[in-house]
Amino acid sequence: MLSDLDRLMRERELDALIVPMHEALHPSFRWITRGAKVTRGYAIKLTGRDPILISYPMERDEAAATGLATRLIHDFGYDAIFKSAPNGIAAYADFFDVVLRELGAESSLAIVGNLPFPLYLGIAEGLETKSWRVWRGSDDLVQLARKRKEPWEIAAIRSVGERTEQVVDRVREVLRSSTIDGDHLVHDGRTLTLGDLKRLVSREISRLGMLEDHDTILSQGRDAGIPHSRGDADAIVRPGVPIVLDIFPADRESGYFFDLTRTFCAGPIPEELRRIHADVLEAFELARESMRAGTLASSYQTLVCDFFEQRGYATTRSNPATLEGYVHSLGHGVGLDVHEKPFFGLAATNRDEIEIGDIVTIEPGLYFPDRELGVRIEDTLVVGEDGRVETLCRSSRGLNP
Amino acid sequence: MLSDLDRLMRERELDALIVPMHEALHPSFRWITRGAKVTRGYAIKLTGRDPILISYPMERDEAAATGLATRLIHDFGYDAIFKSAPNGIAAYADFFDVVLRELGAESSLAIVGNLPFPLYLGIAEGLETKSWRVWRGSDDLVQLARKRKEPWEIAAIRSVGERTEQVVDRVREVLRSSTIDGDHLVHDGRTLTLGDLKRLVSREISRLGMLEDHDTILSQGRDAGIPHSRGDADAIVRPGVPIVLDIFPADRESGYFFDLTRTFCAGPIPEELRRIHADVLEAFELARESMRAGTLASSYQTLVCDFFEQRGYATTRSNPATLEGYVHSLGHGVGLDVHEKPFFGLAATNRDEIEIGDIVTIEPGLYFPDRELGVRIEDTLVVGEDGRVETLCRSSRGLNP
Repeated sequence: MLSDLDRLMRERELDALIVPMHEALHPSFRWITRGAKVTRGYAIKLTGRDPILISYPMERDEAAATGLATRLIHDFGYDAIFKSAPNGIAAYADFFDVVLRELGAESSLAIVGNLPFPLYLGIAEGLETKSWRVWRGSDDLVQLARKRKEPWEIAAIRSVGERTEQVVDRVREVLRSSTIDGDHLVHDGRTLTLGDLKRLVSREISRLGMLEDHDTILSQGRDAGIPHSRGDADAIVRPGVPIVLDIFPADRESGYFFDLTRTFCAGPIPEELRRIHADVLEAFELARESMRAGTLASSYQTLVCDFFEQRGYATTRSNPATLEGYVHSLGHGVGLDVHEKPFFGLAATNRDEIEIGDIVTIEPGLYFPDRELGVRIEDTLVVGEDGRVETLCRSSRGLNP
Repeated sequence: MLSDLDRLMRERELDALIVPMHEALHPSFRWITRGAKVTRGYAIKLTGRDPILISYPMERDEAAATGLATRLIHDFGYDAIFKSAPNGIAAYADFFDVVLRELGAESSLAIVGNLPFPLYLGIAEGLETKSWRVWRGSDDLVQLARKRKEPWEIAAIRSVGERTEQVVDRVREVLRSSTIDGDHLVHDGRTLTLGDLKRLVSREISRLGMLEDHDTILSQGRDAGIPHSRGDADAIVRPGVPIVLDIFPADRESGYFFDLTRTFCAGPIPEELRRIHADVLEAFELARESMRAGTLASSYQTLVCDFFEQRGYATTRSNPATLEGYVHSLGHGVGLDVHEKPFFGLAATNRDEIEIGDIVTIEPGLYFPDRELGVRIEDTLVVGEDGRVETLCRSSRGLNP
């Protein structure tokens, strides 16, 4: 939330943040400008003050529509600067120098977002030669501030979640209304393929006002055993094997993501799959029941690794190179990025905490590609005022579609 | 094209390029990895060699599906490095140092793309302390290499263009089949709004396998007089005023954009609008007829500014602060970014040339927001082997829908 940003800036003794955007919209610009529909612009945040948006004249209406205070590039001598500077890097460094001084920054700043790298590397150094101190760090401050969500952000994510569940319902309906013919499923008189289901998912996501920013994961058997395999559209849907549906659409307007995974099995469920699924579900419940605000996110990865290892499964904790067993981390934050803070990995550098207002996934899984098996169960959850997690998902976690 | 990249690297005496991607897909990563469907990864290009993709184990299938040579992070000691490094920046610098040495780079590299800035600023400096020379420049080399398109890229853009025209046809049909009732249009018995047309555009873009990555510009009257105003969805469509439809969808699969603008007027066309439209069309034809490979793109901006100023219009060349007349540049390249090289602006730093294989727009316009007038005409064109531009658009440029 924006109030966190001021605290983060003060802790680092920063006067100003620059969040530029050149063509490629990135979540930090979207967040700080409240979704400005511009193709280029510069958000400036001074400590203790509201962000302002500097835009180009032909986008002044869209800049104003954000509700932020806005300025035009010409207010800071843009044209004269770009006419006289020897190159683009020098011009931008001169321009930001004028902007920062006119807005009242004193000596220090951070430049954040997903930015054209060689250009901004030069700009940062150019600002340093003008005596500005430029901040460095693994995380950008806006990413940190985006971690705890405001109530309206939680409502936006909840809304994406409700529509995501509707898409999952449609996939369930097709699987339930299919008949088994030997080694394949038949729907509406035709052999059902994963591609049929993928197209259904794409259509429904679009119809419900969402974007399939990344391809949905819809994979079965061996491919379900590789967590991020998108699945083979030509594959015929088979009974008795796991089908992993991992769906993460974003709302068209707000840009907020949701993330949900279910594992289905059409027809009779093999005993081995039933047992693995039960273990994954137990890990899910263990993490969900124990998760509390004020603790390290990585502690739940430890908890779930302990659990799986006690059950005899390999984990990437015990063997980083394993491709079988529990091979990823327990979850991640969700917001304007589908994967954002807090992260749950065991790297020593990960000190992310669970905090009230976080939106997180819990998504344990077990994978055995050589045995054509993969199971993952994932909910998106909010960390409530009581410090416990509350799921935003309603759908059954069972194997039956 | 990829062959340009080797030349650009050799000219700068660079051994290696690193094109990382963290969650936020950016065009340069998409281009160099041929659309890898991973959430994180590192493309490495050594001079004279094919790019390789370093991925995480759970995304190994999607990495392999690119057809590139692939490696896993573990091949370069990722886990041990991240376990022992004091922070993420140091860990990444150590990791890339190992990668570059093992792959045979000697001393120099560029890091390119839209990258998490504070992190990569630290990584670049970390690599410099390990005696790597890190390149700086306003353009990233992959952007430069993306400028001239391969035949398959031109085919992909042509395909988006054909579908974009179909969307425009649907808007035309609605406007043509509407009736005028006093100061508004009626369609299917209901008062037609810009929102109705915007929803139609969104539905058709999705139905035709494209993404509306940026909101379509559909504006009329005063808003049409502000080039990038997206238009008011609640506005009632009116006869006798210009309606600007500027549509720039991307193909879902390939990611390539198209960019097309038409200005319509339903009902009787006011004389002033007819005259302004004729002047814009004349500027369009002037630029299209004269454009040749081997010349500066900015020379056509000069040509069109001369033309409009001779007709008595203000331009941002004669008055950078003007909000009336000809207020933007003549066009831009189109590819995996909707606006990319070559650029047509008059900044002294812009030395972009028109080259065979470029895809460009030509889009003159005239704007008078206070008179509720704005006209823009835009085609996407390819620079052919004969050095002349060939339009990829088929639709009429006239004011009648």
